[in-house]
Amino acid sequence: MSFNSFGNLLRVTTFGESHGAAIGGVIDGFPAGVEIDFEAVQEELNRRKPGQSKIVTQRKEPDTVEFLSGIFEGKTTGTSIGFIIRNTNQKSKDYNHNTNVYRPSHADYTYDKKYGLRDHRGGGRSSARETANWVVAGALAKQFISQININAFTSSVGDIFMEKPYQDVDFSKTESNIVRCPDEASAEKMIDKIKEIRKAGDTIGGTITCVAQNVPVGLGEPIFNKLHAELGKAMLSINAVKGFEFGSGFCGSKMKGSEHNDVFNADGSTNTNLSGGIQGGISNGMDIYFRVAFKPVATIMTNQQTINSEGELTEITGKGRHDPCVVPRAVPIVEAMTALVLADFYLLNRTRQV
Amino acid sequence: MSFNSFGNLLRVTTFGESHGAAIGGVIDGFPAGVEIDFEAVQEELNRRKPGQSKIVTQRKEPDTVEFLSGIFEGKTTGTSIGFIIRNTNQKSKDYNHNTNVYRPSHADYTYDKKYGLRDHRGGGRSSARETANWVVAGALAKQFISQININAFTSSVGDIFMEKPYQDVDFSKTESNIVRCPDEASAEKMIDKIKEIRKAGDTIGGTITCVAQNVPVGLGEPIFNKLHAELGKAMLSINAVKGFEFGSGFCGSKMKGSEHNDVFNADGSTNTNLSGGIQGGISNGMDIYFRVAFKPVATIMTNQQTINSEGELTEITGKGRHDPCVVPRAVPIVEAMTALVLADFYLLNRTRQV
Amino acid sequence: MSFNSFGNLLRVTTFGESHGAAIGGVIDGFPAGVEIDFEAVQEELNRRKPGQSKIVTQRKEPDTVEFLSGIFEGKTTGTSIGFIIRNTNQKSKDYNHNTNVYRPSHADYTYDKKYGLRDHRGGGRSSARETANWVVAGALAKQFISQININAFTSSVGDIFMEKPYQDVDFSKTESNIVRCPDEASAEKMIDKIKEIRKAGDTIGGTITCVAQNVPVGLGEPIFNKLHAELGKAMLSINAVKGFEFGSGFCGSKMKGSEHNDVFNADGSTNTNLSGGIQGGISNGMDIYFRVAFKPVATIMTNQQTINSEGELTEITGKGRHDPCVVPRAVPIVEAMTALVLADFYLLNRTRQV
Amino acid sequence: MSFNSFGNLLRVTTFGESHGAAIGGVIDGFPAGVEIDFEAVQEELNRRKPGQSKIVTQRKEPDTVEFLSGIFEGKTTGTSIGFIIRNTNQKSKDYNHNTNVYRPSHADYTYDKKYGLRDHRGGGRSSARETANWVVAGALAKQFISQININAFTSSVGDIFMEKPYQDVDFSKTESNIVRCPDEASAEKMIDKIKEIRKAGDTIGGTITCVAQNVPVGLGEPIFNKLHAELGKAMLSINAVKGFEFGSGFCGSKMKGSEHNDVFNADGSTNTNLSGGIQGGISNGMDIYFRVAFKPVATIMTNQQTINSEGELTEITGKGRHDPCVVPRAVPIVEAMTALVLADFYLLNRTRQV
Repeated sequence: MSFNSFGNLLRVTTFGESHGAAIGGVIDGFPAGVEIDFEAVQEELNRRKPGQSKIVTQRKEPDTVEFLSGIFEGKTTGTSIGFIIRNTNQKSKDYNHNTNVYRPSHADYTYDKKYGLRDHRGGGRSSARETANWVVAGALAKQFISQININAFTSSVGDIFMEKPYQDVDFSKTESNIVRCPDEASAEKMIDKIKEIRKAGDTIGGTITCVAQNVPVGLGEPIFNKLHAELGKAMLSINAVKGFEFGSGFCGSKMKGSEHNDVFNADGSTNTNLSGGIQGGISNGMDIYFRVAFKPVATIMTNQQTINSEGELTEITGKGRHDPCVVPRAVPIVEAMTALVLADFYLLNRTRQV
Repeated sequence: MSFNSFGNLLRVTTFGESHGAAIGGVIDGFPAGVEIDFEAVQEELNRRKPGQSKIVTQRKEPDTVEFLSGIFEGKTTGTSIGFIIRNTNQKSKDYNHNTNVYRPSHADYTYDKKYGLRDHRGGGRSSARETANWVVAGALAKQFISQININAFTSSVGDIFMEKPYQDVDFSKTESNIVRCPDEASAEKMIDKIKEIRKAGDTIGGTITCVAQNVPVGLGEPIFNKLHAELGKAMLSINAVKGFEFGSGFCGSKMKGSEHNDVFNADGSTNTNLSGGIQGGISNGMDIYFRVAFKPVATIMTNQQTINSEGELTEITGKGRHDPCVVPRAVPIVEAMTALVLADFYLLNRTRQV
Repeated sequence: MSFNSFGNLLRVTTFGESHGAAIGGVIDGFPAGVEIDFEAVQEELNRRKPGQSKIVTQRKEPDTVEFLSGIFEGKTTGTSIGFIIRNTNQKSKDYNHNTNVYRPSHADYTYDKKYGLRDHRGGGRSSARETANWVVAGALAKQFISQININAFTSSVGDIFMEKPYQDVDFSKTESNIVRCPDEASAEKMIDKIKEIRKAGDTIGGTITCVAQNVPVGLGEPIFNKLHAELGKAMLSINAVKGFEFGSGFCGSKMKGSEHNDVFNADGSTNTNLSGGIQGGISNGMDIYFRVAFKPVATIMTNQQTINSEGELTEITGKGRHDPCVVPRAVPIVEAMTALVLADFYLLNRTRQV
Repeated sequence: MSFNSFGNLLRVTTFGESHGAAIGGVIDGFPAGVEIDFEAVQEELNRRKPGQSKIVTQRKEPDTVEFLSGIFEGKTTGTSIGFIIRNTNQKSKDYNHNTNVYRPSHADYTYDKKYGLRDHRGGGRSSARETANWVVAGALAKQFISQININAFTSSVGDIFMEKPYQDVDFSKTESNIVRCPDEASAEKMIDKIKEIRKAGDTIGGTITCVAQNVPVGLGEPIFNKLHAELGKAMLSINAVKGFEFGSGFCGSKMKGSEHNDVFNADGSTNTNLSGGIQGGISNGMDIYFRVAFKPVATIMTNQQTINSEGELTEITGKGRHDPCVVPRAVPIVEAMTALVLADFYLLNRTRQV
């Protein structure tokens, strides 16, 4: 029972505060013999890192990962893979005003009550900086299950939605704009929206859609580790996430069985895919797709009433460098967690028949 | 690593097929000294059981639980609690036509591919009959954390939504109608809808909302066992669930930070509760509320095209006794899983400070 | 985290008190497609059951296992296997004198202090009756890894040791005498010893040796789940066990490296096998052998001073039907736990290379 | 399921090869609010480090631990504690002759077969260097459960045994000689023995005894996580360990029940303590004591026949700097693992009653 671990057979255990010496983790159960492309790992980190564009936080952190074990002469050895990412650009002073004050809709209050104390610098462990660890682990997982294609993208910012279905866009376009929406027309509107919000010192929510293609049939365990339940848990672990739906999702709750059922073709594929590629908790070989809702970032640049740890009313104004919208930087995180879930079940599935 | 287990410190491990000899489970980690109200357990099972009203399946199963261990002279002893529920009303013949045929949007195809064989009778392990086990475990959990009030209810059937916010209804009314919606006006419309759907041999989806009140501050672990991530995983484990959202949920993704932040009162409570009682993965003492989407039941009474295990196209018509809408019977299941999650974190929280 | 569970990928979770309604368990992760020989399972239970010979307890219990799930048309389905064994011959009255009294070197005192209450009938959960569950699970594991031969036998009773090395005896002889020692000359002496001890109202300890042959190379994880560490934990879980050694064991601690090293042959086998078939926590294909020490049974038929739960000094005399020596009945338990450990690592080993 | 993790509620996950960049780990579940004495941690590492005396390996490594997270202003925060120890004195060239050759009674052969490749430098992951990680984690655990006194010491080297019972020695003397035996007369003989063995280019085994005093009643779980079973697993995880016994151990197997039972005193203590402080898997408040057998180090300075990965016979001679006897440096490792086990059960025990 480890509350900083994710996964079963392929299991990542992490540590690190946003303003401590380093973050990092241990990847356990990674199979031996996988040739690691270190540049590809760093590229994934670069997609997540701060300061990459005008619409994300202007903090500059190189986010360079150092692998410490488990890889020898370019290949995984089957032993645990330790890694760290040094924290280099912490401006702890930006948070001195927070020592004693609970920022609204942050984790300051709950950490203090749960643990009796907290590292107030930059949110400490509750900072989304932690997700850089997940991107490292997910990048390795992607290389292990490289036959599966995982593509996440920004599907809405505020009330601006990508209008095309995912089948009609080209995923290779996702990285061609800074909001990571593969539909250029929608992307432009989303970027404008975020710029406007940032100018107002405010923040905005959004959604990410993720599609996994070429997934083998049979991944997922049918009772308490249903494939979609693990994906849901993975997504709900990402900072700021408020909701998860797969396949028909919440819309499916309004439908009739005669509309919702996916009719089989002779080859086992289905005509429609309202199931979202998962039936009874197990992948059926069709595209897996799901949607993740992100709330607006809690740190805003305007004045808010709040309390301090003595229960006195006080005021707080956001300082430092923050994201006006978390969604563009969360795209690689969604992909990383999806890769971890799928790789875990992929390994496990080798043990389910005699 | 047990794929038929749920929970960490309080952990339930289950077994059973819908048409086997019995279903049952083992509840491990339940603390010693809890006085068990056996009638209350049976009442929860009765809320879930088939045949209880005109709008659910007309199968009759008494669903009587037999406790085999872990309770002595009416009190839990701290040892594992074994229990079984005999299967008494299996009409396996109803499923003979399914031996070789994959029912659309069921788990027949994926089980066969994953395991190389399957128990075709009534869905076998993939049947929602399994959830009776969860209701037993959840009923015990409820008795352990009896100070927390957990109330789930039907919040929509198809496109009929309960219009009042949960704060404006009386949860004690939930059981006063067969659809389990505490707002009588909405309940009537929902019941009519389900009757109409059943008459057409069709099925319909819906949503359940669940509210947990009087939850202590501090429950939940902040990284990979966030309280809402565990609740999400629990809900997504329930048969037919397609989505989960808590607090502001998917609506929150359209909001601005200045609208979404919950301002603190001097006592640590918040003015609004878009956070849904959870901040940074940890309960903050406010109401926890979330919403769960259920797809329509896949078994419909009309003819559908499908394939058999040889990959030949064939037709199938639903037989036997099935639910036109799974939502009313799922209300106690949602509550049970919520109780299991909260009780688990409640125990764990005793270990987080020196 | 389940404290009534054993194993990782193949995982058994158990319940049951010696004088409750039933004992039983859930076997999770058992691969699909294994044809189950139910008679072989019952035979293993018969080897463990009370009343089977003159030198074990004269209690009569049929110990009939009922499988409730996970097996369909004679084959495992990959879903969890539930089973129960009804308790039929409980004479709870035999234990009425114990309600309030702590039997020396039993678990009465520690259970009471740990849980605040206890089921005093026959030791409750601390009874070795629990091990019948393990024999069921182990019997299934044996059938899954049937190519591996696991043979345990009584290697000493008190100070009577089997003098021949295991290589010089015929394991098929183990079942031909009631003490389960494959060397007939030693067996006779052991049986006489136990009869003498029983007559005196006393009990005696002993050791069991277990040999696993034809084990594939590569089983075991090299850091915290070393093959011998898991075997050791498994053996130390058996009631009355006080020690475990494998290969050269405690004798090895007196040796020099030049004596102890096992020199390789060209085919990877070794000339000697002081390593006991395990190097660096991983099986090397040679025989795995280990020895387990059992203390004398704590229940004796003579008067002993003790205390009750009020801390008052009192006296106690063993009543009921007890084993004068636990070792003969523990032989199938040692084999069952060995089978569970090996089967678990056997499955796991499928996931260690790309 | 993590095979580089140890513990349940308090859980350490490690990584690192002897000749990689660093070793390290993550300590999860450590309660918040423990003030950390960093010097005490380093002192424990110094007790384990190479080069500390004439009778251990002459390798010089500072073994300086760097904590990266989970501790703020000198106190634990309840979040995961990451740490690393840089490898500074690797002479990888010493191992070039091993690239392709399997050292007898090492893990070279089994790693190669299990993973299909291996890091041959210094044993890679199979090196006892890993245990430095355990010492770090154990040092923190000791500080959490500081009321419990844990004292391990060298109780034999080859056939030289400490003759006094542990009750008759002064544990504060353990550190006053380089072999770590608290009985000076025995210590001298042991040191002479090791010097003689080293001069011959050979190695020798030995045993360590460990005593835990002032342990609260109630630690340990009664079925599969018995206190002694977890201690046994912990000890059997240490490199070169071949056996474990607690209380009366293997000697107990020769005794009669009337000799072996521990009679209660009115206060719940026992007159004798053949149980070794554990009854039914649960601590009873008496001293816990156990003994651990270490085989002689496999690397010897004389010529041995062996094979290479092509299965060709070849010869090997130990090079580099190695321990003639592993026991003196293993004393702090035994204590560290004991502390981890006890601290884990100490936390868990808070959850066992309502």
